[in-house]
Amino acid sequence: MRRALSLAANGPATGLNPRVGCVIVDPDGVVLAEGWHRGAGTAHAEVDALSHLPAGAARGATVIVTLEPCNHTGRTGPCAVALIEAGVSRVVFAVSDPGRASSGGAERLRAADVEVVGGVLADEGEAFLADWLVAARLGRPFVTLKWASSLDGRTAAADGSSRWITGPDARLDVHRRRAAAGAILVGTGTVLADDPALTARAADGSLLPNQPIPVVIGTRAVPADAAIRHHPHPPLLYPGPDLNRILQDLHTRGIRSAFIEGGPGLASAFVAAGLVDGYLVYLAPTLLGGGGLALGDIGVTGIDQQRRLTVEGIERLGEDLLVIARPLDFPHAETAHTETRI
Amino acid sequence: MRRALSLAANGPATGLNPRVGCVIVDPDGVVLAEGWHRGAGTAHAEVDALSHLPAGAARGATVIVTLEPCNHTGRTGPCAVALIEAGVSRVVFAVSDPGRASSGGAERLRAADVEVVGGVLADEGEAFLADWLVAARLGRPFVTLKWASSLDGRTAAADGSSRWITGPDARLDVHRRRAAAGAILVGTGTVLADDPALTARAADGSLLPNQPIPVVIGTRAVPADAAIRHHPHPPLLYPGPDLNRILQDLHTRGIRSAFIEGGPGLASAFVAAGLVDGYLVYLAPTLLGGGGLALGDIGVTGIDQQRRLTVEGIERLGEDLLVIARPLDFPHAETAHTETRI
Repeated sequence: MRRALSLAANGPATGLNPRVGCVIVDPDGVVLAEGWHRGAGTAHAEVDALSHLPAGAARGATVIVTLEPCNHTGRTGPCAVALIEAGVSRVVFAVSDPGRASSGGAERLRAADVEVVGGVLADEGEAFLADWLVAARLGRPFVTLKWASSLDGRTAAADGSSRWITGPDARLDVHRRRAAAGAILVGTGTVLADDPALTARAADGSLLPNQPIPVVIGTRAVPADAAIRHHPHPPLLYPGPDLNRILQDLHTRGIRSAFIEGGPGLASAFVAAGLVDGYLVYLAPTLLGGGGLALGDIGVTGIDQQRRLTVEGIERLGEDLLVIARPLDFPHAETAHTETRI
Repeated sequence: MRRALSLAANGPATGLNPRVGCVIVDPDGVVLAEGWHRGAGTAHAEVDALSHLPAGAARGATVIVTLEPCNHTGRTGPCAVALIEAGVSRVVFAVSDPGRASSGGAERLRAADVEVVGGVLADEGEAFLADWLVAARLGRPFVTLKWASSLDGRTAAADGSSRWITGPDARLDVHRRRAAAGAILVGTGTVLADDPALTARAADGSLLPNQPIPVVIGTRAVPADAAIRHHPHPPLLYPGPDLNRILQDLHTRGIRSAFIEGGPGLASAFVAAGLVDGYLVYLAPTLLGGGGLALGDIGVTGIDQQRRLTVEGIERLGEDLLVIARPLDFPHAETAHTETRI
C-alpha cells in the first residue's frame, strides 16, 4: 500500500479527481504491474495498471489500490467491473469512496466473489487525500487559511507595511503551495490596500505552471488597473457575504482547494463560520506590536469557546517557522455525499 | 572543555556567581581532578578541583576551566594565584571574565610563565553563562520576557479569560524556569486582574525549592488580600516607570535574572526600552481572536523598525510549542564592567 500511495503522488495535485495509485501482485507477492491516475478523463489507477498486462495475466492476482475501486461510469467505465472481468481474486484498498454515485465498488466486487479488504493504511490514505475527501464529502473546496505574522501575532506594522515579515524560503513555500491550490481568495480590502498579483511564482519571479484562480470577495469595486486584472485567469468576483454559497459555486466550477490569503475580515469570517480545514501559519522571529492582526473577531468571547487546533507539522524555513494545523474536529463528519469521480 | 561545561551545570542556577566547571589533566591528558563552583562564599571551581589533589600533584598539569580564573580577593582568594602556587603549567578557558575587579587572571598567570589559552568553545561557554554575563556586563539582571498565546497571538479571550490556553506540560515548564529566575516582574494591572501567586510550583501544586522574588511595578496599590502577599518572599513594589533604575536596584539586591510575566503594558515597555535579553513564547494550537494581546505598542510604526529576533530553539511541550528567542543583536556589546565574582 505504501508503494501504491507513492505511485498516487505522481498524479496532478489539482483537478476534479483524487490522486490514486495501484499495484497488482501475483499470489507470491511478485509485482506484475503498477499504475496511477493522471487526471479526469484518463484511465483510473486500476485500469492504468491493468493496461500494462497482457489479457489474462491478472487472473488470480491481488490488486492493491489507495481508494476503493469506483462503481460508476463517468468518462471511464467502472473499475470494479474491469477488475472482475480481469479475473482478479483479491482487492485491498485504503480509503472508501465517499462519492454518491461512484461508491459501492467493494460491494460489487464481493458479489462477484472477489475477496475485498478495506481500510489498509487508512490513516495515511485519508491524510493523502484530505483535500479531495473534504470536497467529496462536503461539496465544497478544501479551505486552507494562510497567514504570515511576527512572533507577537502581527501581519503588518502599525502603518500597514508588511514587506517582508518572513524571509525568502517562507515566501517560496507559499508560492509552491499556492500553485497546488485551485483558487486564492482575498477580500476587496486586501486588493485595495496591497494590490496583490495572487500568482504563484518561482524564486526568479516567473510564473509556476499551475496558477490558482483569483477570487475576490466583497462589495467594493476592484480597480481597472489592479494587479489581479493581469492574472493568467480572470478573477472571480463575489459580493459576499454568504461564504457557503461562494464555496459551493467554486466547487461547481471544479475548484477542489482554496487558499484564503486575507485580509483579517475575510479570514475571521471563514474561521467564525467553521469553514477552514487547514491552517498554514508562517511565524517570523520578529516583533511588531500595534494593530495589524491576522484575525479579528472570530466569535470567541470566553476561553471555553476557543477554537482548538491540532498541530500536524512544524517546519523551519530559513529563519522562519511554519506551523501546519487542522481543526481539532478534522476530518469532518460525512455530512454529504455529493462527489463522484469522472 | 565539554566536560568542564557539564561540571559547571552542577552549580546553582541563581545567585551572585556564575556557574563554572574545571578539569585538571596531566601532560598525557589523564584526568587528575574535577571541580565546580557551588555558589557565592564557596570555593571557585579551580580551587575546588585542586582541593581533591595532594599538595604538589598539580605541578606541570593543565587546568581546563569554563571561565577565566579570577584575579580578585572576594570571599575567596584569587584563583590565578592558587593555580600559580600549585605549579600548573597551562590554563585553558572558554570565556573571559568581564568583572571590573575580578578580570586580569590570564595576564597574572602569563606573568608567572603559565601558558594561557582563552576562547576555547567560547560560543558554548558564552551561551551557558548568558544570564550571568548580561548581569556582569550591564549591571542589571538578565531579563526574560515570557508569554503564552494562541496561534493568532492572543493571551486571553475577549472577556479576559485565559485559563488555560497552554497545556500542563507548558505550564510545568514555566514553573521550572521561574524557579531558576531571581525575580518575577508583573504590572499592577496584572495583579488586580489575575491575582497571580507568582510562585514556582511542581505538578502537584507544592512549592519548588527556589522561589523567585515577586516584583510589582505600577502606581496602583496591591490589595491587602492579594495572593502575592502570601508569597514566601515579601513582594518588592516599584511605582515605576524608570525600568532601568528598577533593574539596577534589583541588581544591587543580588538578583541576576528576572522574568517578565505581563501584562501587555509592562511587557511592551520592556521591549520598547530594549531591555529584554530572552524571549519564551509558548504557542498553543488554538485560535481566540479579539483584543487580548501579549504586546501592545512597542514603538514600531513601520516594518523597517521591526525588532528582529533569533530563534535559539523550538520545543514541543505536549500540544504546545515553545519558541526560545533572543534579540538579533544579542549578546549586547560590553557597555559596562560592574560585576565581580565574590
